[in-house]
Parts: sequence; structure tokens; C-alpha cells
Amino acid sequence: MDTLQLDVAVIGAGCSGAYSAWRLQHQFGNKQRIALFEYSNRIGGRLYTVTLPGLPNVKAEVGGMRYIPSQHKMVAGLVAHLGLETKDFPMGAPKPVGSNCNLFYLRGKHLRLHELADPEKVPYNLSHLERGLGPTNLQVQVMNYLAPNMQNLSLCQQMQLKVFGKELWQYGFWDLMYRVLSGEGYRFMKDAGGYDANVANANAVTQLPATEYSDETQFLTLKDGYDQLPIRLAEQFEQMRGVTEKEERLFLNHALTEIQTSDTNGYKYKLVFRLTETTNGKTTMIPGTTRVAYANKIILGLPRRSLELIKSPLFEDKQFKSNLKSVLIQSAFKLFLAYERPWWRTLGLVAGRSVTDLPVRQVYYFGTESEQKGGKPWLNSLLMASYNDISTVPFWKGLERGEPFTGYRPSCIEDNVKSMVLPLPHQPTEEMVLIAGRQLAEVHAQQEVPPPYAAVYHDWSDDPYGGGWHEWKAGYRLDEIMWQMLKPFEGNDVFVVGEAYSIGQGWVEGALDTAETMLETYFGLDRPSWLDKDYALMPVPQGGCGALGGCIPATAMGATLSSMTPNCLDKIQEG
Amino acid sequence: MDTLQLDVAVIGAGCSGAYSAWRLQHQFGNKQRIALFEYSNRIGGRLYTVTLPGLPNVKAEVGGMRYIPSQHKMVAGLVAHLGLETKDFPMGAPKPVGSNCNLFYLRGKHLRLHELADPEKVPYNLSHLERGLGPTNLQVQVMNYLAPNMQNLSLCQQMQLKVFGKELWQYGFWDLMYRVLSGEGYRFMKDAGGYDANVANANAVTQLPATEYSDETQFLTLKDGYDQLPIRLAEQFEQMRGVTEKEERLFLNHALTEIQTSDTNGYKYKLVFRLTETTNGKTTMIPGTTRVAYANKIILGLPRRSLELIKSPLFEDKQFKSNLKSVLIQSAFKLFLAYERPWWRTLGLVAGRSVTDLPVRQVYYFGTESEQKGGKPWLNSLLMASYNDISTVPFWKGLERGEPFTGYRPSCIEDNVKSMVLPLPHQPTEEMVLIAGRQLAEVHAQQEVPPPYAAVYHDWSDDPYGGGWHEWKAGYRLDEIMWQMLKPFEGNDVFVVGEAYSIGQGWVEGALDTAETMLETYFGLDRPSWLDKDYALMPVPQGGCGALGGCIPATAMGATLSSMTPNCLDKIQEG
Repeated sequence: MDTLQLDVAVIGAGCSGAYSAWRLQHQFGNKQRIALFEYSNRIGGRLYTVTLPGLPNVKAEVGGMRYIPSQHKMVAGLVAHLGLETKDFPMGAPKPVGSNCNLFYLRGKHLRLHELADPEKVPYNLSHLERGLGPTNLQVQVMNYLAPNMQNLSLCQQMQLKVFGKELWQYGFWDLMYRVLSGEGYRFMKDAGGYDANVANANAVTQLPATEYSDETQFLTLKDGYDQLPIRLAEQFEQMRGVTEKEERLFLNHALTEIQTSDTNGYKYKLVFRLTETTNGKTTMIPGTTRVAYANKIILGLPRRSLELIKSPLFEDKQFKSNLKSVLIQSAFKLFLAYERPWWRTLGLVAGRSVTDLPVRQVYYFGTESEQKGGKPWLNSLLMASYNDISTVPFWKGLERGEPFTGYRPSCIEDNVKSMVLPLPHQPTEEMVLIAGRQLAEVHAQQEVPPPYAAVYHDWSDDPYGGGWHEWKAGYRLDEIMWQMLKPFEGNDVFVVGEAYSIGQGWVEGALDTAETMLETYFGLDRPSWLDKDYALMPVPQGGCGALGGCIPATAMGATLSSMTPNCLDKIQEG
Repeated sequence: MDTLQLDVAVIGAGCSGAYSAWRLQHQFGNKQRIALFEYSNRIGGRLYTVTLPGLPNVKAEVGGMRYIPSQHKMVAGLVAHLGLETKDFPMGAPKPVGSNCNLFYLRGKHLRLHELADPEKVPYNLSHLERGLGPTNLQVQVMNYLAPNMQNLSLCQQMQLKVFGKELWQYGFWDLMYRVLSGEGYRFMKDAGGYDANVANANAVTQLPATEYSDETQFLTLKDGYDQLPIRLAEQFEQMRGVTEKEERLFLNHALTEIQTSDTNGYKYKLVFRLTETTNGKTTMIPGTTRVAYANKIILGLPRRSLELIKSPLFEDKQFKSNLKSVLIQSAFKLFLAYERPWWRTLGLVAGRSVTDLPVRQVYYFGTESEQKGGKPWLNSLLMASYNDISTVPFWKGLERGEPFTGYRPSCIEDNVKSMVLPLPHQPTEEMVLIAGRQLAEVHAQQEVPPPYAAVYHDWSDDPYGGGWHEWKAGYRLDEIMWQMLKPFEGNDVFVVGEAYSIGQGWVEGALDTAETMLETYFGLDRPSWLDKDYALMPVPQGGCGALGGCIPATAMGATLSSMTPNCLDKIQEG
């Protein structure tokens, strides 16, 4: 196979890689050869939209699924610029229907959302001042106790905060919570919050700010699937005019195995790829295959595990090896079930999620085909039966082997559909679907729930992904490391971008943020015209951030004594 | 440095490696050159005994710490043969003192052991038939419900058991428990049992048998530390007569990095080592160093992670790669604190453990110097303040950085001791000790506990160990894989031994069992005279094990209807 000679090689066609390639091609494409390489046969990385039979307009998002337009300015601007159609991603029932009736099933007891604030009903042995607070308000109270309104500080200022005489960034969140909450308070926050990751012992600077979504937070997603964002970027990248009229520049099924700095044919780097093949959705290396590319600059749009799978003398750098380990790889698992009718609607559940401490952990009511814009007149409905992470993932991994789930043909379905089984990397088993159904029945206080006609699941822990998302470890200077990772090797034009080492971990915004910062800083690109004028690049660690010293002025935090003092009579009305 | 030419190279001076080298040297040492290589400067592997100042006779076992003489025939026989002095390792108070008063602190509530069987006191929302059973009896009931007396079957027969229409070995333990216990029943078993690993979603064949120690189980340890077992083996190995009068055959600070099958100098294998250095207890590779050995046979006495760190064309074997992943690596963490007096004694706590769902999880009362045989007349006492695994390890990892704990000089102490800080791979921090102390106070219902004068901790997750022990994954034929791992490469004399791929995972017995089986099977060694005549090698998977088919004769299980039917009136008296 021919070798490629490139100015810039971009590795990984997830959000950060596709975005980098697209921006560079737009700016330099008529002068420089830019190519985008992807391990699998799929654009999107950890955005992965699956369309189940009978549900052409209710997409199963087995990876990232939503964004917060008020906070995620890169995503919002880019979505608008690309002309992608959005739709609401509600977290609770629409308000006209009444208050949010979504369920919590904790320690064998059913509660509605508002009952989480009723200390007589909550089955946790909370301390006196924890009683009456739901998990979100508990976190707000803890944050205000430790660092009032810290969410109003810049990262640079947050890195200077001290609690109990030690810098906040030195703390793991769990370690810090042990100092301010009872064991039961912490467990309640973990169980009722739905995510293990949100209370994991990761860096307290990123974990503590109580900015997690409440029921009032507005989320959006893309009507045709969230992976349309990187797909559209890759399409446009491929179609733009290049140095010559026609040249191949998108290479799927290419796994980067090595970056060499010698024998580079006059370029700075030699990249060695193994070719892969994708059969029924599973991508595997083809033994004995090799493809070589030479490049002067390399952009690695890859998470931690993918980086660990690459061999290179550059990677022996001591600081890089230490920084690589500065983030936790968090496992995550999603199971979607398709039904002929939204059986949950009659229980007062319309949208958003219910939460349990059973292994399903979170159930999201995704919607009904007939209610979608342009949808078919079918009642087929999609449920994210389980969204779980870290401690509960092994429960589901144990159900991966066995008889594959085949489902059945529903009454309303596209004529040409022959099988309910899709060619995807993971095939649900009969037992996995059975056990999920039993937990759904238990969470919803039903004797039984109907059998689903189709199912899909995804576990992100397999190579080359490693996990669903990343979290900064305690004791690492994330404000410095995220800049070091952007350009990790002194004197080398190798760049690392993506969610893993960003300040927006777990979100597409984090991935795009690192890419845009890298492109403006090291490739000299101009700020895009479509980007909100308030958008700021990754925060710079040193200088000019306003040292807090021993004194934190109240004005810097937006904190007043009255804002710090909740009305204790309000407590039992919370929810 | 000179190259070595060997008949057998044994890698890893833990129990399985030291034992293999010792046995082979004894049998073949006057005809064959045998050498033992060790990554660190220490014999013992995951047995690691630390002697704290002021406690010469109460050893801190930061790794494996005990054995069950009635079950562990290899260990018991070997200990007797080597003439190592044993002592009791009690799990509760000695009976004359009264009933076991050890504490359980769960969900913010204190209970004594016998109260675990009082359904009105247990803070778990148990189902009707779970009520009144402590965690051990709950497991016995579940096992008898699923496979009465399965502990009486051979492994080969256990592999044929089916529950709910599926072979038992296909189940993860947690997945199976979900089908027979309420969520609260499972959580109670996990929290009150003390170990996450015992209820982890590992293979149900090894997890289900309720053979875990009760308060009646007799444990032993070695008076001078459990690592005396491999240390004595390595010493004798080194001292035995060889092919020549004097030859070096124990190589510490040698890290095996590669096994090559070409350029082998007339031998079958070329082994490439990197030299390491150990400073203040920490072992690191010395860059640029290499030592080569040639050998015709290789014994790898290594756990999974250590194997993964070795490069070899042999390791590309597909079955080996799959088998390597057939076990879970479980993280484990131990923290020991030394006090000038055993403050727990006045609370009625003498020996054994207390259990909590706080991150310390298990507290073991290790003993007082003056009470030991030959002990100094000092009240200095040792507490294993925390023995925790899997989900709670990250809590303690978050406290690893910061000001090192220095302790203080106690009144009774060896004259020559200058500092309480020992040169060990892990140094406790002030904060780790502070937080452990707070949890100890909470567990023991004290306002405060005294400050310790010395501390030591160990976390086994660092390379090259990977974790504290291993567990077979669900869905893997462990009965076959453990044999395949013993000699993984067709036509090659490369052998893998150790706890990781044994039927006695987590115990020294498992490690010795694989080694003895390998030595008798592939090196033709005779059964040692010191070994109990009832000792049996690793069970053979196929043939002659008595197929159960559809019918399990009651006699095979020792099960009768009356043995399966507990007296329901006894329940609330359990404990």
C-alpha cells in the first residue's frame, strides 16, 4: 500500500479529531496536506447514535447524548453553524402536566422526587443538618459550607482555594466529603444522584462545584442523533478543496500503533498504522498489515487508553508518563430497550429519568415515535433501561455471554426490516434483557413490564476507548497538566486534544475546547466567526487570575452572609 | 555483565516461584543449573511482613497473613517441614472471655455480632425470609437453595451444576444473587461481610460455596511473619549444593522484560532483564541496563499484571491472550497503626475484627507485645486499622499525597531506634492517619482514639503486582483454563504458576497448589514426603469426575431434606 506524506496527521475521528481536521482543512487545505485517521469504520468516537427498527425518529444514544446550550458555547455555536436540527432533551415531565413525578427506588423503598426532601421518608440515617435536603441541595450546602459560591471563581482562583488548611485540588472529593458529611449522607448523595462518577474520589476542584444539572437545566440534543456533529464535520472536511483537485484524506480502519522519530523520510515523524476490519460492528486488527504515513505535525484526538496503546520514543518522556496517569478512566454502560408502547406513561412518567440503587441505576424515558417531529404514526417507544457507571458495570458485564437477544417483530415497523438484531459491536443477551426487565418492574412497582421487541447496549471499557469518560485525579495540578498535554513534548509538534485532559470532562464541550485552544495557540487560527463572543479558551494557569491569598473577597465569590444562610423553614419544602 | 546459561529460569520470588526453585534445586540441582530472579530486592511477593518499632513480636502483615490448617495442606505441610513456628490468628475473642463482642457499624448504627441476626436491629430493609440471618448464614441459605451442599462436590462436578437452566460457571455471583436475594439482602451481605471481593461479580462456582471462615474457623500464621515461608525456601534454595561448588543462583533486582525465541545461543529461550534498584523500599528500573540469560525452561511465578508487562512473541498466542483476561485483578489496601496501649481492650475487643461500611471497612485487633511468646514487657499494640478492597481503595489512594506521617517516640522502644519512619514502598501521610483515626473513633463509638506512634500501609495495585489477589471471571471454564495456564504454549517449556490462575485464589495454598501440580506433571517430581497423604493436585477437568447429568444424587451432595430445612425458630438465635 502507498505511503502518505502529510503536513498534519490527525488521529481519531471523534469530536476533537474531526473538529481539528475540519478547521485546519478550512484554513490551510489549499496549501497543506491534512489527513484524518480512524481506528474503526465509524465517525464519532464516544458519540454513537443507533437507530433501532421501528424508531426512525427516536435515536438511541449509546455514547454522549446531550449538551447544555447556556454553558456549552462551542457545541451550541458549532451546531448552529453546521445547521444541525436540535431538539429538547428533558430531564423531567413538562411542567403543564404537573410536578415531576419521576421515581426514586432506594433501599427497597419507592419515593417521588419531592419526597427526597422529606426526612421521615428518606431511608438513610442522615445527620440532623443533612435531613430535609435532596442530593443536589446537599451538594450545594456542602459547597457553600466549604467555599461559598466557588462556581463563580475562575479555575485559576479555584486552584488557590484551601479547605481545612490544604489546597482544594489536593483533595479527592470522597475524602473531602468524609470531613463534612456523615457516611449515610455521602451514600444518599451517591445512590440518589444516579452517577457513581459524580461522587467518585476524583479531584475536588472539578467535583465540588454544584453545577450539576437540576430539573430546571435546559438540555438539547440533535434531532438526527448527536453523532451527526462529528459526522458532518468529517464530511465537510472530506469535501473541501485541497492542494490538488482530488485526494483521499479520510482513512477509516487505520489503527495508529507507532510514532517514530527516526527513518522519517525528510518529515518529522513516521506513523505506523495497522489496518483494521469491521465485521458486524466489531473492529479488529488485521494481522500482518501495515501502512506508513510521514507527517510534520500530529494531532492526537484520543483518550488516555488509546494513547497508552501507541508505542513511541516520545512517550518515554517522564512528565508525559506522569500526566497520562493524572486522570481516572471511568467505566460506563448503557442499555436501550424498544417497546410497542410507552408503558411508563400511564404511571405518570413522561420524560427525564428515574433513579435507583439497583444495578440499572438510572432509567431515562426517551420518547415515542409518533410524538417526534416528522415521526411515523407509531406508538413504538424507546427506554434507556439502564445508564450505569463504575461500581455497577461489572453486574452487566457478567451478563454479556449467552444466548443473544432476538426480540420480536412489532406490529408497526418499516416493511424492509427483516431482523431486530443490528450489526453492532455489542449484542445484548436474552438474560441481560430479562434481568433489566425485572429491575424495571421493581423500580416501577409493577408485577411485570412488557417484553421489549428490540435492544441495544454499549460498554465503553473495551479498547481502544478504555471507558466512558475521564476525571482528574486528586493531587494533580489539572490547570497546568491540561496545557502540558496539549503540546506534551518540548520541541515537537505533537498535540493531544479531547475530553480526557480537558476542563469539561465527560462533555463534547471539553473535547472541542481543547481542540480550539490548541488550534488558536499552536496553529495560529483565528477565532471562528460563529463562536459566541463570550467564549473563552482553556484558562491559563499562571498570572493575572487574581491571587486570592489568605483573603477571599466576598465580591469575588458573589457570596453574602444572607446567600450563605438558607431559610431553615424552607428545607422540608425542597424538591 | 555476564550472561547466564540455565536449564531452568524461575521468575518471581513469591511463594510459587520460591517453592518451584527450591523443589527443583533439591531434585536436580547437582545436574541442572536453576536460577531464581526477582524484580524487587525482597523475597515474598505478596507476602510481606513489616516489623514496626517497639513491636518486635507483633508483625504487620501488609500482604497475605494467615492460612487454614484444616484446608491448606500444602502450606501446613511445608510450614512443618521447614520447622517454622506458628501461632494462632484468632478471628474473635477467645471463648473463655465470653461471646464475641466484636462490632459492626453499618449505616450509622452500632451492633454486636449476635445482633446481626436480630431483624429489628439490622438497618437493612430485608425481605421476609432474609430477616434473622447474619451475612454468613444468608450465604449458606442461598447456597443450599441453589445447590444444596455444593461444597461437597468436586470442582469437576461443580462445573456441571445448573441453576435456572444455565451452568453455574456462566454466572457472575452478583448476577446470581440478584435472582435470589433482594437488593437490600445483597447489600447487607456485602457491607457486613467486610470484603467487597467476596460478593464481587466473579465466577459463581468459586464465589457461591459458603466455605468462608466463620468465627469457628481456625487460622494460623507464622510467629516471625508469614513471609518467612518464601524467605526460608529461597535461603535453602541458595544454600543447596549445585552443579559446581559455588554458583550464584538468586538474582534480586532483576525485572524480566522480554522472552525471545530467536537468537537463543543454542538454548530454547533468551530472557532479557532490566536491572532495578531499590531505594527506601521503592523499586524502579535503571534505564539503559540489560542482563541476558538463556534457558531451556522457564517458570513464571507471576500474577496477571506482571505477565502483561512482559514482551514475548509467545504471548501473542490467541488462547493465552484470552486466558490471561479470565481473572479479575482485585485491589486491596491495608493500613496498620501502632499504639502504646491496646485501647480497644477496655471496649471488650481482644482479637479478630470489627466491620463497617465506612472506608476503613475492617479493623483487626492484632495484639500486644507483652502477650507474645518471648515478647518484651511492653504494652505496645498493633491494630490493622483498615483492611479494605475494591470500592473503598480509591478513598485511601486520595490520601497518599501530602505531609508524611512521622509519629512519635513511645516510652517503650528499642534503644537503637531513631525514627518511626521505615524505608518502605509506601509512606503513610499525616492526613491518612488522621482520617483513619476518625473512622476508628466512629466505629468504636468513641469521641476520639489515641494518636498512633507509628504507621505503615500497603496498596497492591502498583506495578508489577496489579492488585492484592485475583478472582475468576464469570463465563470462563476455570477448570480448563487453570491447566492451560500451567503450560500455556504448545511445544514450549514455559510454565505459569501462582495464586492468580489457581483454584485457591487469594491464598498461599492456591499458589503452592499450582506449583506442585506443575512440578509433578511436567518435571516428573515425586510427591514430597512431608505432604499430607490426602493432598490432591489441581483437579483434572475431563473424565472420571462423575458426570451429574440431569440427576444430582442426594448422596453426592450429602444433602437430605432435613439438612436443607433449617428450623425457623432457630433463626433469631443465630449469631
